Amino acid sequence: MSAKLKTAVVGATGYAGFELTCLLKRHPHLCAPLLLSRENGPNSPANLAEVFPALWGNGGYPLEPFSWARLRDCRVELLFLSTPPEVSRALVPEAIARGLRVIDLSGAWRLKQEQHRAVYGFGDNQSEVIEKSIYGLPELNRHRIRDAALVANPGCYPTSIILALAPLLRRGMLDRSRGIVCDSKSGVSGAGKEPNSRTHFVSVANNFSAYSVFGHRHTGEVLEQLELADNELIFTPHLLPIPRGILSTIYAHLAHPMSPADVESTFRQFYAESPWVRLFATPQLPQIQFSLHTNYCDLGFCLADDGRRLVLVSCVDNLLKGAAGQAVQNMNLMYGWSEEAGLN
Amino acid sequence: MSAKLKTAVVGATGYAGFELTCLLKRHPHLCAPLLLSRENGPNSPANLAEVFPALWGNGGYPLEPFSWARLRDCRVELLFLSTPPEVSRALVPEAIARGLRVIDLSGAWRLKQEQHRAVYGFGDNQSEVIEKSIYGLPELNRHRIRDAALVANPGCYPTSIILALAPLLRRGMLDRSRGIVCDSKSGVSGAGKEPNSRTHFVSVANNFSAYSVFGHRHTGEVLEQLELADNELIFTPHLLPIPRGILSTIYAHLAHPMSPADVESTFRQFYAESPWVRLFATPQLPQIQFSLHTNYCDLGFCLADDGRRLVLVSCVDNLLKGAAGQAVQNMNLMYGWSEEAGLN
Amino acid sequence: MSAKLKTAVVGATGYAGFELTCLLKRHPHLCAPLLLSRENGPNSPANLAEVFPALWGNGGYPLEPFSWARLRDCRVELLFLSTPPEVSRALVPEAIARGLRVIDLSGAWRLKQEQHRAVYGFGDNQSEVIEKSIYGLPELNRHRIRDAALVANPGCYPTSIILALAPLLRRGMLDRSRGIVCDSKSGVSGAGKEPNSRTHFVSVANNFSAYSVFGHRHTGEVLEQLELADNELIFTPHLLPIPRGILSTIYAHLAHPMSPADVESTFRQFYAESPWVRLFATPQLPQIQFSLHTNYCDLGFCLADDGRRLVLVSCVDNLLKGAAGQAVQNMNLMYGWSEEAGLN
Amino acid sequence: MSAKLKTAVVGATGYAGFELTCLLKRHPHLCAPLLLSRENGPNSPANLAEVFPALWGNGGYPLEPFSWARLRDCRVELLFLSTPPEVSRALVPEAIARGLRVIDLSGAWRLKQEQHRAVYGFGDNQSEVIEKSIYGLPELNRHRIRDAALVANPGCYPTSIILALAPLLRRGMLDRSRGIVCDSKSGVSGAGKEPNSRTHFVSVANNFSAYSVFGHRHTGEVLEQLELADNELIFTPHLLPIPRGILSTIYAHLAHPMSPADVESTFRQFYAESPWVRLFATPQLPQIQFSLHTNYCDLGFCLADDGRRLVLVSCVDNLLKGAAGQAVQNMNLMYGWSEEAGLN
Repeated sequence: MSAKLKTAVVGATGYAGFELTCLLKRHPHLCAPLLLSRENGPNSPANLAEVFPALWGNGGYPLEPFSWARLRDCRVELLFLSTPPEVSRALVPEAIARGLRVIDLSGAWRLKQEQHRAVYGFGDNQSEVIEKSIYGLPELNRHRIRDAALVANPGCYPTSIILALAPLLRRGMLDRSRGIVCDSKSGVSGAGKEPNSRTHFVSVANNFSAYSVFGHRHTGEVLEQLELADNELIFTPHLLPIPRGILSTIYAHLAHPMSPADVESTFRQFYAESPWVRLFATPQLPQIQFSLHTNYCDLGFCLADDGRRLVLVSCVDNLLKGAAGQAVQNMNLMYGWSEEAGLN
Repeated sequence: MSAKLKTAVVGATGYAGFELTCLLKRHPHLCAPLLLSRENGPNSPANLAEVFPALWGNGGYPLEPFSWARLRDCRVELLFLSTPPEVSRALVPEAIARGLRVIDLSGAWRLKQEQHRAVYGFGDNQSEVIEKSIYGLPELNRHRIRDAALVANPGCYPTSIILALAPLLRRGMLDRSRGIVCDSKSGVSGAGKEPNSRTHFVSVANNFSAYSVFGHRHTGEVLEQLELADNELIFTPHLLPIPRGILSTIYAHLAHPMSPADVESTFRQFYAESPWVRLFATPQLPQIQFSLHTNYCDLGFCLADDGRRLVLVSCVDNLLKGAAGQAVQNMNLMYGWSEEAGLN
Repeated sequence: MSAKLKTAVVGATGYAGFELTCLLKRHPHLCAPLLLSRENGPNSPANLAEVFPALWGNGGYPLEPFSWARLRDCRVELLFLSTPPEVSRALVPEAIARGLRVIDLSGAWRLKQEQHRAVYGFGDNQSEVIEKSIYGLPELNRHRIRDAALVANPGCYPTSIILALAPLLRRGMLDRSRGIVCDSKSGVSGAGKEPNSRTHFVSVANNFSAYSVFGHRHTGEVLEQLELADNELIFTPHLLPIPRGILSTIYAHLAHPMSPADVESTFRQFYAESPWVRLFATPQLPQIQFSLHTNYCDLGFCLADDGRRLVLVSCVDNLLKGAAGQAVQNMNLMYGWSEEAGLN
Repeated sequence: MSAKLKTAVVGATGYAGFELTCLLKRHPHLCAPLLLSRENGPNSPANLAEVFPALWGNGGYPLEPFSWARLRDCRVELLFLSTPPEVSRALVPEAIARGLRVIDLSGAWRLKQEQHRAVYGFGDNQSEVIEKSIYGLPELNRHRIRDAALVANPGCYPTSIILALAPLLRRGMLDRSRGIVCDSKSGVSGAGKEPNSRTHFVSVANNFSAYSVFGHRHTGEVLEQLELADNELIFTPHLLPIPRGILSTIYAHLAHPMSPADVESTFRQFYAESPWVRLFATPQLPQIQFSLHTNYCDLGFCLADDGRRLVLVSCVDNLLKGAAGQAVQNMNLMYGWSEEAGLN
C-alpha cells in the first residue's frame, strides 16, 4: 500500500471548508490535512473549535498561519482553497509554480470567457493559469480532471443545473429558441458564514425570497458549460429557510416530442458510469432531504402530455456535491482512486 | 347605524375556516358568527377549542351541528363554506334556494368550463348554479361581486398568479406563444389540517419539494381567469418548510420591449383602486414575510436588459388573501362596506 | 372626544421598537408616532422601510434625527425608549426634567437594588430618577403605573416568570427553602436585530442551547420583584429555533399540600381583573403558539400526586407582552384608557 | 478474518429502525441485514423505499414478511426489534428460546421493578425473560452487555439523563433530599413516524410545549437505573420544533461544595474508557447541533458560586445515541468489536 497523501486546506473556517476538513480527516487515503489560515491577527483563531465549538468535544483541530514554507516542510502535494475568489486568485499562480496541485472551491478560475468573468471584477489577466484550469464537474470532465494541475470546483447552483441539462443539451434534444428557465432554491449556508441582516435567523425563518434576479454570478458558469447564449437561459436563485440543500426546477422544451421512457433512458445512459448521480423514475421526484449529507446529485423529471414541455428537478447538498464533496470526488479522480472513496 | 349582519361558517375546524372565524369575530359590522359542523358523531368537537386549544384561554367558541333550521332561526343572511368541494357542491343549491347568500372557499364553483372542472370529478351537472357563481377576486370582478348570490372564493395559488399576470395579459402586453412559467411555493397550511405523511414535521423540515407537476387542480382556475390555453402556461407548486405564505415566481415575455418604468406604471394604474395590492418598486422584491398575517397581495418584478424577459414575484398569505381574508373582502363588497373593513 | 395623544419612539429600528411602532400606528387614541433615531451618520436610514423592507409597500415611515427641540415642537407628551440601556440612562433624566412622561423598554431603570444593577455596569448614580421609576408590570403595579412619570417596562423573561410565581409567593404558598428553578426558552428575536454568529440562521436552525447560566442580567429583576434571595432561584435561559415567543417551565414546592383546584383558584382570584393573563385549566398547558402575536401571558400548571411538587408553564410573545405590547398596556393605564385599547 | 454476522431488523419502517438499517448496511462486520415486517396486508410495503422514498435512488431495500422460518433459513444470529413494546413483548421469548440474541429498542424489557412497568400495561408476567434482560447503556453496563442474550436498549431521554447524573450519584456526590429536576427537550422524530395532529408541521413550527408532565413513561427507567425514589426526581419532556436531537437541562445540588475542576475530573474519570461520551469544559456547553448525526452523548455543566447548585447539560441525537447508534454500540460489545465500529 502506498503512503498516504498530504493535503492542506486554506479556508477551513467557512462552511464548505469545514465540511471539506471533516471529509479529508476521514478519507482512507489521506494524512490529517494541514489547516492554514490567512487571518493572522492577534484574535485569529488558533483552533478550528473556536469557530465550530462542536469540535471542543474532540480537542479540536489546530489552525496555523498560512505560509509557503510550512506547505513545503509538510510535503503537501495537494492544496484545497476554500477562500474568497480574490484570495484564490492571489494564491494559485504561486502554488502551481511551486509544483502543488490545487483544487479551488471559489469562483476564481471557473470561467474561460471574459464576458462572464467580468462580474468578479478581477484586475489581473492570468490567461496562462486560466488556460490550465479544468472545470471540476467529474460527470462531464472526468478525463481532463485526472491530470489537472488546477481544478476549478463548480459552484453549487451550477452543479445542480448543469447536471440536469447536459444530457439533453449535449445530444441536441432541446429547443433552445424557446428558452430555458432555472428556478433554483438554496439553503442559507450557501450565503456564507459571515453574519449579516440577510442571514439573521429572524429574517430567514418563515420566509422565502428571490434574489439577484438576472444578476447572479453563477450564471456565466452555467452558460459556459452548457454552451448557451445569454438570452437562452434565465436563472433565478431563491433563499430557503433551511440550513443546506439546493433544489432547481428547470423548464425546457424538447426539440421533438419524446416519451418519458426516452427521456429516462437518455439520462440513464449519460450517467451510466457516474456513481454520484441518481435518477428518480417518474412519478417520484427528488426532494432536498433525499440528498442532504450525501454527495449525490438527484435528478427527476415530468413530461407534459404533448411530449415537449419538460420540467426537470435536480437536488444537491450545496456543501457536498455543491462544494466539499465534489472537491473530494475531484481529488479521487486526480489520484486514481475510486470516485466514491471517502464519501460514503 | 344599521343592525349587525348575521353570518355562519361551516368548516371552522380547518385552517382557513379558523382564520375566517377569527376575522369575523373581530369584524365591526358583524354579530359573532354561528359555527356549524357537519361532523355529528359522538366524538365530534362541541367547541372549536378542542381543535385549536389556544382558544381554551378564552373559553373557546361553541360548535353546533349543521342544520337549515338553525340557520333560519338565527336569521343568518350570509353563509361561509370552508368545506371540501364535495360538501360545498351539496350545500350550495339549497342555500341559494333558501335565499342565503354564500361565499364558498372551496373549489366547487370556481370553474365555468367543463374541461377544467373534470379534475374535481363532480358527478352532478348544476349548470344553473354555476352560471350564478361569481369568481371572487375583487381586484378583477369588483362590480359583479357586489350583487352576487354565490361567490366562489379563489384558490390561494391562483390568487398569487392571476393578480401578477392580469394587468399585462388584459392589456395584451405578453407574447403568449413563448409560454408562461409559474413556479409557486407554498407553506404547509395549504395542504390542510389532516395529518398525513406529507405534512409530518419530520417530512417537511429541512426539506423542499415539487408536487403535482402538470396536474394541480388550481391550474384550470388560472387558465380560465386569464383566458389562456392549456399549453400557454406551466404551473408547478412546491412545498416550503414554513407554516404559511405563498411566493410565485413567474416567467413571461413581453410582446414588445418595455422599460421598467412602463411595467411599473401598468401595474400602478391597474391596481389604483385596489387597497389590498401592493407594488414593490425595483429592485425591492416582495418576500413571503412581508405579507404574512395581512390581506395584501404583494407584487414586484425584474425586467432583463432586452426589455422582454420578465420575472414577476407575487406573495400572499395563503390563509388570508389566499382564503379567509379574501372571503371577508368579498363580503365587504357584497354589503357595501369598505374593502378594508375588518382586515387591518 | 379628547384630542389624540402625541407620542415619540426612539429606537424604532430594533425588533421591539418596530413592533411598538406598528401598535402605536393602529392605536385608536394616538396620533401617528414621531420616530426618532440616535444614529445620525450619512448612512443612517431616513425611513423605517430601509430597515424593514416590508414597509416599502406602504411608502414606509420617516425616521428623523433625535432632538429635544423636535419633541417640543411636536408637543410630544409621552416618550417611548426602545434603546440600549446606556442610551436610556442618558436620555431619561432630561426627558423627565422637560416634563415628558417616559416608558423605557430597556433594563436601565428596572432595578432598585444596587447589587442587581451591577451587571449593567452603569457609571452614574441617578438615585433620584431611580426612585421615581415604576416597574411596569400592570398586573402587579397597576395603581402605581397610573401616575408614573417613568415606567420601566419589564424584561421578557421576567414577565413570564414573575406572573407565574407572584400569586403563590405573595400569598406565602411556596417553600422557598426548596429553591425555585426557572427553565426558560426564548425565540431568537430576544437576542436583538444585530447580526452575529449566534443569530446566524445556520447556527440556530436544528439547534437548541442554554446560555448565560447563573449569569443572565434579567435575574436580578425577578429576584427583586418576587423578593427572593439569590440562592432561592435558578434561572436558565435557552435559545429556541423560532423567531419569537418565550416558554418558562418553573419548578417549585408548595409549603403545604394543595389540590389542583386550590392552585387554580389562587390564580383565578389573583388575576380576576387582568385581561391579559389567561389561565389554562389542567391538563391543557400553554404552548408558545397560543400567545404569539398577542399580548397575553398564558399560564398553566401540573401538580404532583403529593400535592407539593408544582410545575408551572408560562408563555408570552417576547415582543408583545414581553416588550411592546406591555408598553402599550402601561400607556393605557397612564392615560386612563382600557388596558386592552389598541392591543386586539 | 471471521465470516460476517447475519442480522435482521423488525420495524425498519420507523425512524429508529430506518436509522438502524442504514448503520447496519454500512457496518464493516455485517452482512446486509434482513428486513422483516409484521405488516402483512395487501398494501404493506414490499420495499423500504415505499416508506422512505430517498431510497428509490438506490433501488431501495426489500422488506419481507416476518417469519421464524425465514430467520432460521438465513442463519440470523442477532435480531434487532424496533417495534412497539407490545410486539417486542410477544416476540422476544420465542426468539430467545430459538437461540437468537436480541437487541430490543422498545421499552418492553427495560424495567425490573413492577411499579415502574405498570405504565406500559403489559398483561403478561415474563419474570424469567425480564431477569435475563440487560439494560443496554454501555457506559454503565459494559461488562454485562457482552454476554447478554437480551439487551434492552435504553430510551432516548433516559440516555441523556442517566449519563449526566450517574457519575455524581454513583459516587454519592448529590444531595438527593433537595430533589433533581430534569427539564428535557426533544425533536419531533422522538414522537414517531405515525402522522397525528401533534406532529403536523403547522402544530410544531414556531411552537414549543411541555407534555406528559409527571407522567412520561421514561421516568421509571431513569429512577431505576439511578436508584432514585419517585419524589427525588421531576422529569418534564418538551417538544422542540426540530426533527431530531435531545437536550436535557438538569438541576441538582452537590452534597458538599466542590470546585468546577473537581466536577470536571469526576466526569473525566468516570468516562475515561467511554469513546461515545464527550465532556465540554466550562464555559462551553453542549448544544443539540454538536451531537446531531453522531453517536455522542455530549455533557457539560455550570456550578454556582456557592459550589453547590449545579446545572448539567446533556445532548444526544435521539435516533443515534438515543436509539439506533446505541443499539449498534451494544452489538459491538456483544461480539467483541470496538465500540466505535460502524459508527464513525
